[in-house]
Amino acid sequence: MAKSSGKLRVIPLGGLGEIGKNITVFEYEDDIFVVDCGSTFPDDDMLGIDLVLPDITYLTKNRERLRGIVITHGHEDHIGGLPYILKEINVPVFGSKLALGLIENKLEEHGILSECELIPVKAGQTIELGAFKIEFINSTHSIVDAMALAIYTPVGTIIHTSDFKVDYTPISGRPIDLLRLAEIGREGVLLLLCDSTNVERPGYTMSERTIGRTFDELFRSAASRIIIATFASNIDRIQQIVNAAVKYDRKIAFCGRSMINVCNKAMELGYLTIPNETLINIESTKNYTGDKLVIITTGSQGEPMSALSRMAAGEYKLVDIVPGDLVIISSTPIPGNEKSVSYVVNELFKKGAEVIYESLAEVHVSGHACQEELKLIHKLVNPKYFMPVHGEYRHLKKHADLAKGIGMDENNILIMEIGQVLEIDSSGFKFGERVPSGKVLVDGLSIGDVGNVVLRDRKHLSEDGMIIAVATIQRETGAVINEPDILTRGFASIKESEEFMSELKQICLEAIQKSSSKNVHSKKTKIKEALREYIYQKNNRTPMIIPVIVEI
Amino acid sequence: MAKSSGKLRVIPLGGLGEIGKNITVFEYEDDIFVVDCGSTFPDDDMLGIDLVLPDITYLTKNRERLRGIVITHGHEDHIGGLPYILKEINVPVFGSKLALGLIENKLEEHGILSECELIPVKAGQTIELGAFKIEFINSTHSIVDAMALAIYTPVGTIIHTSDFKVDYTPISGRPIDLLRLAEIGREGVLLLLCDSTNVERPGYTMSERTIGRTFDELFRSAASRIIIATFASNIDRIQQIVNAAVKYDRKIAFCGRSMINVCNKAMELGYLTIPNETLINIESTKNYTGDKLVIITTGSQGEPMSALSRMAAGEYKLVDIVPGDLVIISSTPIPGNEKSVSYVVNELFKKGAEVIYESLAEVHVSGHACQEELKLIHKLVNPKYFMPVHGEYRHLKKHADLAKGIGMDENNILIMEIGQVLEIDSSGFKFGERVPSGKVLVDGLSIGDVGNVVLRDRKHLSEDGMIIAVATIQRETGAVINEPDILTRGFASIKESEEFMSELKQICLEAIQKSSSKNVHSKKTKIKEALREYIYQKNNRTPMIIPVIVEI
Repeated sequence: MAKSSGKLRVIPLGGLGEIGKNITVFEYEDDIFVVDCGSTFPDDDMLGIDLVLPDITYLTKNRERLRGIVITHGHEDHIGGLPYILKEINVPVFGSKLALGLIENKLEEHGILSECELIPVKAGQTIELGAFKIEFINSTHSIVDAMALAIYTPVGTIIHTSDFKVDYTPISGRPIDLLRLAEIGREGVLLLLCDSTNVERPGYTMSERTIGRTFDELFRSAASRIIIATFASNIDRIQQIVNAAVKYDRKIAFCGRSMINVCNKAMELGYLTIPNETLINIESTKNYTGDKLVIITTGSQGEPMSALSRMAAGEYKLVDIVPGDLVIISSTPIPGNEKSVSYVVNELFKKGAEVIYESLAEVHVSGHACQEELKLIHKLVNPKYFMPVHGEYRHLKKHADLAKGIGMDENNILIMEIGQVLEIDSSGFKFGERVPSGKVLVDGLSIGDVGNVVLRDRKHLSEDGMIIAVATIQRETGAVINEPDILTRGFASIKESEEFMSELKQICLEAIQKSSSKNVHSKKTKIKEALREYIYQKNNRTPMIIPVIVEI
Repeated sequence: MAKSSGKLRVIPLGGLGEIGKNITVFEYEDDIFVVDCGSTFPDDDMLGIDLVLPDITYLTKNRERLRGIVITHGHEDHIGGLPYILKEINVPVFGSKLALGLIENKLEEHGILSECELIPVKAGQTIELGAFKIEFINSTHSIVDAMALAIYTPVGTIIHTSDFKVDYTPISGRPIDLLRLAEIGREGVLLLLCDSTNVERPGYTMSERTIGRTFDELFRSAASRIIIATFASNIDRIQQIVNAAVKYDRKIAFCGRSMINVCNKAMELGYLTIPNETLINIESTKNYTGDKLVIITTGSQGEPMSALSRMAAGEYKLVDIVPGDLVIISSTPIPGNEKSVSYVVNELFKKGAEVIYESLAEVHVSGHACQEELKLIHKLVNPKYFMPVHGEYRHLKKHADLAKGIGMDENNILIMEIGQVLEIDSSGFKFGERVPSGKVLVDGLSIGDVGNVVLRDRKHLSEDGMIIAVATIQRETGAVINEPDILTRGFASIKESEEFMSELKQICLEAIQKSSSKNVHSKKTKIKEALREYIYQKNNRTPMIIPVIVEI
């Protein structure tokens, strides 16, 4: 396969021109390694799809050169694709203890944990993968133990920030290691890959610690039960809730499968500390009065099957929302989830709960760097070349503008697309060939089999429904036996539908009789055309029409 | 039908517990009149639905008592249901010249304009509808000529603000008539109905005029073509764009059907003033250089078929986006539209345009009152009773809290649901019986025929697709003739699908043969069960299974 001697190749396979499924390939002669392998959620037009993965064809075709996968942190958009890639190519995975803990849960679900090699690394540590040396640098983000990478290659050093914010006062762990970034910057950096998610926001992202003050105030004045929804992976947020609960003498119960799994793993690994007497089972909450309780739950994005949504709908047996409950939604709706969150808020209010959410209080901070933080990183790292990553095109473009605005040569700013190959060394860069890239759709147990035809059919069916016309004909003569039958699903017929149905049968019959051809396919086309025209005229709708002809 | 002597009845049929389809019924003994009759957009789970209308069963059942419909302003959520209600009950419609102009366009499309009676009214004017006197009060909103209502009834005065903001410096027309509201308030108001849309926002909404300053700055420094997307109905916004265009010597062209229709109507009625030499056809824009042009277009919500979306996708023949174009999206995404707007922004950036949108500049202000404005209205009107309207439950609840917070007796605050009947007079209130209310779905030419079964089928089809199994049997013996046939649509089969298909045929065959019953329905059930089980096992999916049995 494509090799280019003496050149470093950088190939983003996900996370550019999109939010999610982050994965970047680094290649030098015989050696390849990958940073992250995330998944993403389906778009609205991907009907029935469970999960979207990056296309890893390039990696499976070059499997013998792949030395390992390096994980920067344990969020789904960085680890969600791992079970799928590891089933194809079994290589060692390097990451922090927490990231690997979350990955273990995943691999276990897929039944491949025992075959996989997970190697824990710490900030400050350097590993070697073929021609590459990779140093892990302590960073800060909305999950503990996030790491930036310094990648030392024969042609120069690369800094990959991955997702980050500049938090001087994280809850557990240390602040982002700006000093080390500055040191490496002074030694000379060839290329910076930097998170673009929040580039549209001026100023600084607040420290995670500021949320603790809001929690403290809310806990101090609350006289009733407190229910808090947040991301299960935001261990620092959960630790702050725990701290407030301990201070104000409340028991804590976790709710929702992923919340319980992640928190158990975090406690097991020492990331989350809860006094023994504070933690209780959700079943035991009935033994305490509301003012002695905090429930920490999933569902902060209004996901329909989550614990909080089911509580709001009155369908969650273990927690019945009662008047006076204080519900705190400690997150911002991800674009696309606004309506579901709003639905949950309305239902909680209707049940008499007090609800605190984004519009009303400081109960969430972002995990990504705003403009001033980005400028700081650019200035410290001071790279020759810059590739904005982790963002839709508008974010990459604004990040490029930001870099230009603080003095970077615009010819050295590389806005790339997934599948594009960057070939680079100290003397310059060029874009190489394109490699396969895109979305691989997971639908049930089927991976990558759902194509555009299937999605188009689903969309058609979802909007207009369908009509099946069944006719039986004599094979030799083409004569119609029986009256044609009409079945509909998801089709809104106009009034007097019995009459309408017999009209459709009549039209179907005439279409077959008029078709002089003995060819069944041509008869089907005639039926389709006749029905489509009649239905559109009557109903202004074009349901999917499926003619079935049985020949006897 | 229900009448209650000496009591005023107020019945919200839409706009409470939801955003959109505003409609409120006022009833006193033999007289009924209605304020507004809006439509709303379908929710995400209303697959294939075009429009949602209020249920007006109560009005059609009491048609002989309905004296007229009063329109507060010309937005879709206040007039969109009019063509449908007027087809059922033909009563006079009262509204401002602009609102009626927009209604005329609608009625013409529905072919009923000539039969309808539209009566223009002005702020300051009072009309009589049976027992009611209705005074129109000048208000301010994101459409010109919005009016609040003072409704004088035998039991007391009602103020209905409808949608509003307190704008002291609107572009055309006068500021909201606070003086008149204060006068009526001093005379004594029984009940206030007040807009709740922005109750979650502290402070004041900025004046429409502030946008003019932003436009001026952008126009002053722009060296290339300017394309601005905004709501067609926001005439004041468009007037400000026109003013900037005239000042900086640019020609104006309108783009998009509703933009052209509304602006033509607004010019015809004198609400929008454009010098003759400034306005050109979109086709003529090719005769001018970009720095002499402004294009005003629909599509500010990223609607897929709108002019701006088609420009972004490169599918709009008359306007080709070129590098350097300045595109201004002068609106905020309505919840649910964030992703579509983001898609358009990304595509415009990719084509080299500079894009200015909500996150980046002050190019939009809301049309609704924030907390301080709401407090002002409450204090001026000083009602005995208060019913928050126009909002989801959380808005109504927060508005009730706001009223309580400024001293209102909470027993006099009425959070209501649509279909609830309020019976009120100066001695007190009670809730009467419930009347039919809810959503009537428009699907093509079919109104109200789409029920839950159809929507559930569409959802099922959209997620998992379907499988049709066709078998032919001997009527007398039940013996199978031909091999069963399997058709699929929207179904993602696992790999080796040919083999899978013949497995399905085999299962279908066995299911029929095993079924001892001669009953066709029972055979179908057997086929369904057998296929469902096998497919779920193989694919973890449950497509809709439709067995078709032809008896010969």
